[in-house]
Amino acid sequence: MPRKNNQRGTSEQVSDLTAGRLSVYLRSLNVLAAAGVKTVSSKALAEQFHLNAAQIRKDLAYFGEFGIRGVGYYVTELRRQLRVILGLDRPVRVAVIGAGNLGMALADYPGFRQEGFVVVAMFDVDRAKVGRRSKGGVPIQHIDDLVENVKREGIDIAVIAVPAEAAQPVADLVVSAGIRAVLNFSPGSPRVPPSVKLKNVDLTVSMESLSFFLARGDDGQE
Amino acid sequence: MPRKNNQRGTSEQVSDLTAGRLSVYLRSLNVLAAAGVKTVSSKALAEQFHLNAAQIRKDLAYFGEFGIRGVGYYVTELRRQLRVILGLDRPVRVAVIGAGNLGMALADYPGFRQEGFVVVAMFDVDRAKVGRRSKGGVPIQHIDDLVENVKREGIDIAVIAVPAEAAQPVADLVVSAGIRAVLNFSPGSPRVPPSVKLKNVDLTVSMESLSFFLARGDDGQE
Repeated sequence: MPRKNNQRGTSEQVSDLTAGRLSVYLRSLNVLAAAGVKTVSSKALAEQFHLNAAQIRKDLAYFGEFGIRGVGYYVTELRRQLRVILGLDRPVRVAVIGAGNLGMALADYPGFRQEGFVVVAMFDVDRAKVGRRSKGGVPIQHIDDLVENVKREGIDIAVIAVPAEAAQPVADLVVSAGIRAVLNFSPGSPRVPPSVKLKNVDLTVSMESLSFFLARGDDGQE
Repeated sequence: MPRKNNQRGTSEQVSDLTAGRLSVYLRSLNVLAAAGVKTVSSKALAEQFHLNAAQIRKDLAYFGEFGIRGVGYYVTELRRQLRVILGLDRPVRVAVIGAGNLGMALADYPGFRQEGFVVVAMFDVDRAKVGRRSKGGVPIQHIDDLVENVKREGIDIAVIAVPAEAAQPVADLVVSAGIRAVLNFSPGSPRVPPSVKLKNVDLTVSMESLSFFLARGDDGQE
């Protein structure tokens, strides 16, 4: 087992950045494992996946002593341990709120299933949708049944994919159901208590970094 | 017009972070403008939207002299100028490749339209889908017609939402069509030439930062 680090004072932002990098390492190790690679050095890992070798060593050292001098990392073992650190050593149960296009896409998103996230239910206000399923088979339930279902199904994470004006009431509802982690796709950022972790995914920001790049590129041709 | 900065050596990562912050400022100013606010100081902007006042001043100063001493920023004017910097002062034309659940959701994503991104077409390999439209009315065309359509329609950005194994051939195709900015939702990261800007959106990474948080939270209860 990795040595647990006792520094609890790490800022939320650092945690987020670290978790993001650990996810990328895990994805890289998955590729190596699928190719039958047994061991890898931080240098080789960095070169193959365009990462930073010193950062890899620093990130992993923070959680324990994983590397073997002269060998590097055992791929299977490091994968297993990264999954433990990322909380993926047991299935993580997810509910998607909003059964529109985006909610349906998220309920069936293949990357979630691959890493151990199980979308167990979708919820919507539209009674016409209740009882139907996503293409992948996730059942749609009425939002009024959310609190009861969250407790019965042991939901860990709520994914919010509802219109902007519904985001805050839905966030309040999932918090009242005892959910402590929320991934929000709706415009704006709903408020949640400090004990709840909220992550906003704003697809417009990614698009704007591309239009920014194109606009800067155009500068040179003016 | 903002003073154009001549420093072209800024790293890609810094540009991305800057563009991301400018997007957030623009979104905040949209809220203020809708509320009828005429002027705002960097301090008030920071407090209201949980931003960093010094960072706001630094980011905006990089692009020109927008603030007025003793007044702050004129909301309407700063919005207009941020839209110019982000390349949003003209419609940005987008094609979505892959007309599955996710492609359909992205084609109709309301946030894109609000900021001036126009999804003009979807493309798919499935001839049964060709000729249909998204709920929002975006027509689906065959992938074989992509190169011709990109040129005719003046597509600026390609959004890739196809299965993992199709991501690289699709990326090669959009690059060959002359597209210089790609937003990729497929697992993995397709390779593109250095002159093309690729941004990967991996929804699993966001989910894993939440499971990481939950796993760390659980530590305290062991």
